[in-house]
Amino acid sequence: MSKLTIAIAGATGAVGQQMLQCLEERKIDCELRLFASYRSAGKAFSFQGKEIVVEELKEESFENIDIVLGATENDITKKWMPWAQKHHAVVIDNSSAYRLDPNVPLVIPEINPEDIQKHQGIIANPNCATIIALVALNQLHQEFHIHRMIVSTYQAVSGAGVKGVKDLENQVKDPSIPSTAFPYPIAFNLIPQIGDFDENGISKEEWKLQNESRKIWHDPNLLVNCTCVRVPILRSHSESITIECDQPVNIDKARELLESAEGVKLVDDPQNQQYPMPLDTSDQDLVFVGRLRKDPSDPTGHSMILFCCGDQIRKGAATNAVQILQALIQNQN
Amino acid sequence: MSKLTIAIAGATGAVGQQMLQCLEERKIDCELRLFASYRSAGKAFSFQGKEIVVEELKEESFENIDIVLGATENDITKKWMPWAQKHHAVVIDNSSAYRLDPNVPLVIPEINPEDIQKHQGIIANPNCATIIALVALNQLHQEFHIHRMIVSTYQAVSGAGVKGVKDLENQVKDPSIPSTAFPYPIAFNLIPQIGDFDENGISKEEWKLQNESRKIWHDPNLLVNCTCVRVPILRSHSESITIECDQPVNIDKARELLESAEGVKLVDDPQNQQYPMPLDTSDQDLVFVGRLRKDPSDPTGHSMILFCCGDQIRKGAATNAVQILQALIQNQN
Repeated sequence: MSKLTIAIAGATGAVGQQMLQCLEERKIDCELRLFASYRSAGKAFSFQGKEIVVEELKEESFENIDIVLGATENDITKKWMPWAQKHHAVVIDNSSAYRLDPNVPLVIPEINPEDIQKHQGIIANPNCATIIALVALNQLHQEFHIHRMIVSTYQAVSGAGVKGVKDLENQVKDPSIPSTAFPYPIAFNLIPQIGDFDENGISKEEWKLQNESRKIWHDPNLLVNCTCVRVPILRSHSESITIECDQPVNIDKARELLESAEGVKLVDDPQNQQYPMPLDTSDQDLVFVGRLRKDPSDPTGHSMILFCCGDQIRKGAATNAVQILQALIQNQN
Repeated sequence: MSKLTIAIAGATGAVGQQMLQCLEERKIDCELRLFASYRSAGKAFSFQGKEIVVEELKEESFENIDIVLGATENDITKKWMPWAQKHHAVVIDNSSAYRLDPNVPLVIPEINPEDIQKHQGIIANPNCATIIALVALNQLHQEFHIHRMIVSTYQAVSGAGVKGVKDLENQVKDPSIPSTAFPYPIAFNLIPQIGDFDENGISKEEWKLQNESRKIWHDPNLLVNCTCVRVPILRSHSESITIECDQPVNIDKARELLESAEGVKLVDDPQNQQYPMPLDTSDQDLVFVGRLRKDPSDPTGHSMILFCCGDQIRKGAATNAVQILQALIQNQN
């Protein structure tokens, strides 16, 4: 079998760059092609000791490409997806354009790797806040069966791309510099809006967390209450989560499950000031989980509270996509 | 009747300074005395056109004082409280030392002003996050009767005093400068701990929100689930809150109630990007409330979600204390 040819579409953005790094770290044996807009064409990046020059993404770019890692925004992705399909390239797509399409598996490899095999050319990478929450919760869901989750997020500015990072870095020095990625200043502030609002006042990000969680867990009845908030943090999303379960919860059992849960690091010793924090999870592939406790507002004992943090550019995007890629390669062998 | 003599104990701290400003703004007709530790004695502050020199707080300081506004930490407050009582000075105390004492009314003037009259020399000012949440929720509680609240907070560094502010201001310039008010860096980070943890992993701040809410609303059965988080914001606490009610909730009715709720400003037009943000509430006495919506995770229609922000040094501390003072003066007249 000849070497796989892998492409990154949107190679120069924050997620595309992280995908490149993840492919390198995980020693993925492949020919790599990097695509971006004409503005970025000609830039070069090192990969496995070779220099790879970014090419402009065009209709014929995907000829002889086996797998595409998509790291472009929805509108751009929708434009090039037919080009990839024409050349039978399998796409692992980080945009939200195809996530809820019934023909597109939506995959977190720690949770539903079996869905990868049902793909018809596209596999979708979930929303970052959804990945972080579900990796934290999955073992608890298997044990106690979560039927309702109540989530408040604390989301880093890098979730809005390089512009968001620049805004925060500029504004902490000079708060009068206007935001380019946000509707308001973000330094020393927070913004309870991520994405547009629907007619019921629910933001896009909040809907993603509901609908993508239902799809990944194959539970259309999962109840999700979510408030998504942008905070002045550079990297790593945090989430305060209450889960209500069909089974009574047991905190010792929950800790035991999380100790050995794939993709999770249990950081839960509050007496010794050990709990998840975004500075600690930045540039890490693991989701940190802690502050585990029974929910004192549920006298039936079926609810618990936890706090989790994860790097939304790594596990929330690039790492998850490359894990899907690895599973895909393994399935093909 | 001769002019009232009012004292601020702890006059040089963040809350004491804000009390001074609130007394000035509200044109409280009084003789004012300022007390602090020996280190601050001799500093002078302007009040109603006069210069007032800070005196060292001593056992005989409260002679001829009618009302004391207490703005010192618990241990200091416990030390001087008997001195105030010896001289029959009425104390409005911002520390948490006496808040749950059954002989001490715990008062938010918009909610339970009638409790002021039951005082036996001490009236307690509630915890800042509790005041902000309950001012936001009180009219909804009266209408729909809240039996459970699920709260995640986003609390500003000034809640930890002047040191907390300095930490953030220093660390955004140089992240290697260690924190003095927090166990970890706070710039570009968050810390899911405010106060010590009990054996169930619940922090002091989280317990305050539960127990003080129960006392203020005179509802010992109120169910409270709370996660308190310190965020890199200078001023104003924010809270993401879900309430579950005995009555079915109606969002239009909720908006109508909040439009005319005392101490509240409704900022709730997400389509036009109008929602509460801490930069907007800083140095304001009103609690901003918005992002009102039905809780999609409660199919019974008894729950709703909202987001609120309030200046924790003003309404969360100094303003509330001075409002109690005003009610006390009015009752005496």
